[in-house]
Amino acid sequence: MADAKAQKRQKFESIFPILRDELLGYLKQEGMPEDAITWFQRNLDYNVTGGKLNRGMSVVDSVEILKGRKLTDDEYFKAALLGWGVEFLQAYYLVSDDMMDQSITRRGQPCWYRVEGVNLLAINDAYLLEGSIYYLLKKHFRSEPYYVYLLDVFHDTTFQTDIGQLIDLITAPEDNVDLNKFSLDKHQKIVIFKTAYYSFYLPVALAMYMCGIPHSSTNDPYELAQKILVPLGEYFQVQDDFLDFAAPPEVLGKVGTDIIDNKCSWCVNTALEVATPAQRKVLDENYGVKDKAAEARVKALYEEIGIRERYAEYEEGAYKRIIGLIETIPTEGADVGAGDVKLKREVFKVFLDKIYKRQK
Amino acid sequence: MADAKAQKRQKFESIFPILRDELLGYLKQEGMPEDAITWFQRNLDYNVTGGKLNRGMSVVDSVEILKGRKLTDDEYFKAALLGWGVEFLQAYYLVSDDMMDQSITRRGQPCWYRVEGVNLLAINDAYLLEGSIYYLLKKHFRSEPYYVYLLDVFHDTTFQTDIGQLIDLITAPEDNVDLNKFSLDKHQKIVIFKTAYYSFYLPVALAMYMCGIPHSSTNDPYELAQKILVPLGEYFQVQDDFLDFAAPPEVLGKVGTDIIDNKCSWCVNTALEVATPAQRKVLDENYGVKDKAAEARVKALYEEIGIRERYAEYEEGAYKRIIGLIETIPTEGADVGAGDVKLKREVFKVFLDKIYKRQK
Ligand SMILES: [Mg+2]
Ligand SMILES: [Mg+2]
Ligand SMILES: [Mg+2]
Ligand SMILES: [Mg+2]
Ligand SMILES: [Mg+2]
Ligand SMILES: [Mg+2]
Repeated sequence: MADAKAQKRQKFESIFPILRDELLGYLKQEGMPEDAITWFQRNLDYNVTGGKLNRGMSVVDSVEILKGRKLTDDEYFKAALLGWGVEFLQAYYLVSDDMMDQSITRRGQPCWYRVEGVNLLAINDAYLLEGSIYYLLKKHFRSEPYYVYLLDVFHDTTFQTDIGQLIDLITAPEDNVDLNKFSLDKHQKIVIFKTAYYSFYLPVALAMYMCGIPHSSTNDPYELAQKILVPLGEYFQVQDDFLDFAAPPEVLGKVGTDIIDNKCSWCVNTALEVATPAQRKVLDENYGVKDKAAEARVKALYEEIGIRERYAEYEEGAYKRIIGLIETIPTEGADVGAGDVKLKREVFKVFLDKIYKRQK
Repeated sequence: MADAKAQKRQKFESIFPILRDELLGYLKQEGMPEDAITWFQRNLDYNVTGGKLNRGMSVVDSVEILKGRKLTDDEYFKAALLGWGVEFLQAYYLVSDDMMDQSITRRGQPCWYRVEGVNLLAINDAYLLEGSIYYLLKKHFRSEPYYVYLLDVFHDTTFQTDIGQLIDLITAPEDNVDLNKFSLDKHQKIVIFKTAYYSFYLPVALAMYMCGIPHSSTNDPYELAQKILVPLGEYFQVQDDFLDFAAPPEVLGKVGTDIIDNKCSWCVNTALEVATPAQRKVLDENYGVKDKAAEARVKALYEEIGIRERYAEYEEGAYKRIIGLIETIPTEGADVGAGDVKLKREVFKVFLDKIYKRQK
């Protein structure tokens, strides 16, 4: 089982060097100087690989489920390319997010902007990561009837993610704590825009387009997918926020820093919702303060308000709601008009199963 | 004459608030918090407007020339929207370029990242400026047969510009002067990729698509346009480099800083090409040094090698070469296959006439 998983990952990873070499090949063909080509390669290797690759691999998984069979080599390559497109987009955001958050490490190594000699050039490197997506899409999908839909969905989710980042950045600046700006409502907007669209809707929509599922003016399957995947992404992020507080670091694989970093987390927003004036004072005085004792006081308050039970309740509710949404798809697959491929419950179920009650 | 020009500009400018309000409308419709909407509006107003608008207005001019008549209101709006698309793209680059160059002012006001409270958030603001282009294109051009070509040409030129920026950034870092990295060859690559594609080819290609000029496998009109506009853009940038050194500040409207900023300018590359070992030593010791006396020594050396005559010679050569390229278009307009609209010499001539022997 673990072997199959590692193999799957390895196969997906084996596509990356091909894509990277196509990108570098373009620069070579245009006669770019050697040092520019080397720089771009380092940017690609450093920032696109090394993550969990869940988003990218979920494109391949979804195509397989939708087609209901093993993919041909050509189909696999195309699905993986779309998956890597999501990973490039993720890299575009991580490089800049780490700069804006002034983070220190990412994926167990220094953030790209902190690498010797990079600094603010990281901005242009992020631009190149995004530009790479459209270069690769054009090269491999230009003649497909769904090409323009691929571009649209990348654009739409990119703009949504930008907007999510904007709200997050002005709501929770690290150097200016103001809990009056927080609310569960704002938290929901942030996580949907900043995370859910690109991490959950985008991979599935790409898979659906590649399988030739058409849009429809009534019961559009893409709208249906979005209606399921956006709450799923929201649930994922709430869980992420909760685990940052609750999971033991040795299980989580990192030490949570949301409290110290003044993050607009589900935990603090839930606490704010139920805090007595005395508890609110504790939050105002200790949240976002760069001090372990202050963090401990916030954590104690979370326990005091029963955050664990509240989360367990949230998780059950979210799970049931999402199952309910998934079950609006007919067991035979959604009727999606002219296409041969039907939208299937399983696409969404595998996502949900991966997330439900995860510990890390 | 000056009045007609001002009127033309005013008409073009009158489209911006419409586009801005459509973008803000999207955020409102999605229920975004008030402070995020205000922030986005300030970003748009501060960074997209206030420039010379030459790139944007040249889309409208080109559409008018290609159609050979006054535009209807709807045509004008669409051409202007595409023109503003180029201006948004320009803003995307200026915001980040100013950060990477650590510039102080832009268009007579502090660079965006230096505005109180902005700082590194400017990165995400730049992302939003780029995302705005695709939001607007989708809203207004989605059903046009040439929509996908608009997306492709924006993507292509964006990636080219990113690559140009990369070479520029690693060839001429402000804090590490190394003239061995410079050459006229590299200068040419930088200016073509960093400037020519987005400033010259992009506006004309957008106009051509809007006029329905089709691609062709033989004598593709877009390739022809690129063959003229890329050298034109190169000439424009060489001139820009020369004027930075040679134009009186009261004419240029700013004080040139290329020497002090270690810019990979046509002037220094020309000097390097002909410098004796003694002259090379002067350049090595004084170029990119933050000191007025060092700058004066470089300027004296430029005069010594006869940079003015060399530039005059370059300009005559470039002018003649470009005229020659323009004249490969038949006087009746290029035969462009199935379309009704023909590519016309005048599209390129108005560009050339605006640039030839300009003083500022
Ligand atoms: Mg971060
Ligand atoms: Mg962040
Ligand atoms: Mg987290
Ligand atoms: Mg600059
Ligand atoms: Mg620069
Ligand atoms: Mg200049």
